[in-house]
Amino acid sequence: MNILALDTATEACSAALLCDGSVYERHDIAPRRHAELILPMVDAVLAQAGLGLDGLDAIAFGRGPGAFTGVRIAAGVTQGLALGAGLPVIPVSSLAALAQPALGNAAVVLPAIDARMGEVYWAAYDSGQDGLAAALVDEQVALPDAVRVPSNRQIFGVGSGWGTYRERLERVLHGRLSGIDPERFPLAKNMLPLAVREYNKGRCVSPEQALPVYLRDNVVKQV
Amino acid sequence: MNILALDTATEACSAALLCDGSVYERHDIAPRRHAELILPMVDAVLAQAGLGLDGLDAIAFGRGPGAFTGVRIAAGVTQGLALGAGLPVIPVSSLAALAQPALGNAAVVLPAIDARMGEVYWAAYDSGQDGLAAALVDEQVALPDAVRVPSNRQIFGVGSGWGTYRERLERVLHGRLSGIDPERFPLAKNMLPLAVREYNKGRCVSPEQALPVYLRDNVVKQV
Repeated sequence: MNILALDTATEACSAALLCDGSVYERHDIAPRRHAELILPMVDAVLAQAGLGLDGLDAIAFGRGPGAFTGVRIAAGVTQGLALGAGLPVIPVSSLAALAQPALGNAAVVLPAIDARMGEVYWAAYDSGQDGLAAALVDEQVALPDAVRVPSNRQIFGVGSGWGTYRERLERVLHGRLSGIDPERFPLAKNMLPLAVREYNKGRCVSPEQALPVYLRDNVVKQV
Repeated sequence: MNILALDTATEACSAALLCDGSVYERHDIAPRRHAELILPMVDAVLAQAGLGLDGLDAIAFGRGPGAFTGVRIAAGVTQGLALGAGLPVIPVSSLAALAQPALGNAAVVLPAIDARMGEVYWAAYDSGQDGLAAALVDEQVALPDAVRVPSNRQIFGVGSGWGTYRERLERVLHGRLSGIDPERFPLAKNMLPLAVREYNKGRCVSPEQALPVYLRDNVVKQV
């Protein structure tokens, strides 16, 4: 299966390609330069694999939640690429992509992305039978103090929300924290296994349905 | 020459196709639904002309100034379409596209788009020898009271900025106003002649350079 994934939902910008079982990827931490960087990254991974867009089965993109403008970029580019190549699209949660590489120990993974306005985008994931992120708590936007995980297990925190709100998150989690990694971002390469799962479950959408998920409705600041 | 144009820079969403001298177009006034509407519009004009993306010479897009998120959508979709089809991109000014259909009488055309934060995006255009918009005043963002046109000719105002700030704009223009049409938006069909001019002058860019022009640097509200 050949799947291209791209993500621009946070400070990170990344593209990854699953091609005949191999993964090719590019990423960079470059806030505000995503629109310039994402296509060259797409070009690079396709060229490295010697694959054209017509050799793909689907295109996956980080559909949010995340930075409003960033999520728009990935959605727009995906729409254009998918329409042109006649490919289905796989929207992937930025929070699931953030959690995925931290799964595999005994802890529940709690990804949190700084959502500005004093809030975090967060969710809680366990490792499913397939080793992939399975939601224990659905993604939402909330004050850090409102985060609750209905489990007595240890919790491992990942993402920028843990950098901004570590103390408040630790307080509400009552000493159940086994560790944190606030420097982690959602990356396209970590979306690939999630995208394959969605593809196999038939959860693809058409190009025009490659739409962002914001979780917030009241922040459309068109300036 | 076959050129596809798309624009989502304001409340309007539009696509247009110049194909063998005929123009096909779709447009709608649908704030916040641009991401859903733009691809079906692109599909529709191509289908009507019986043309595929591989039959295009270039893709033009409204590169702003305009609504921040809207401009991002057109830029992203254009990047994806152009990369996939191996086409050059023609960035077109939203203000020039807004002015273009109002040219042709004796007046200078002054397009103004409500830029929020108390300001307008504006410019002033005359009709060039080719009948197309030629800038008398370069595009800028400013308080309505700061708008100045270095000419004694009559002025015709178009765009949403005239709806919001009519009185203040009239005051600074000292009775030189010959008329206004605040209900006009930039539309892809009006970008086509401007795009052809740019194409003929060799002013195309590569897909990854399909970037928005904001005029403002301080408004990147990533929420």
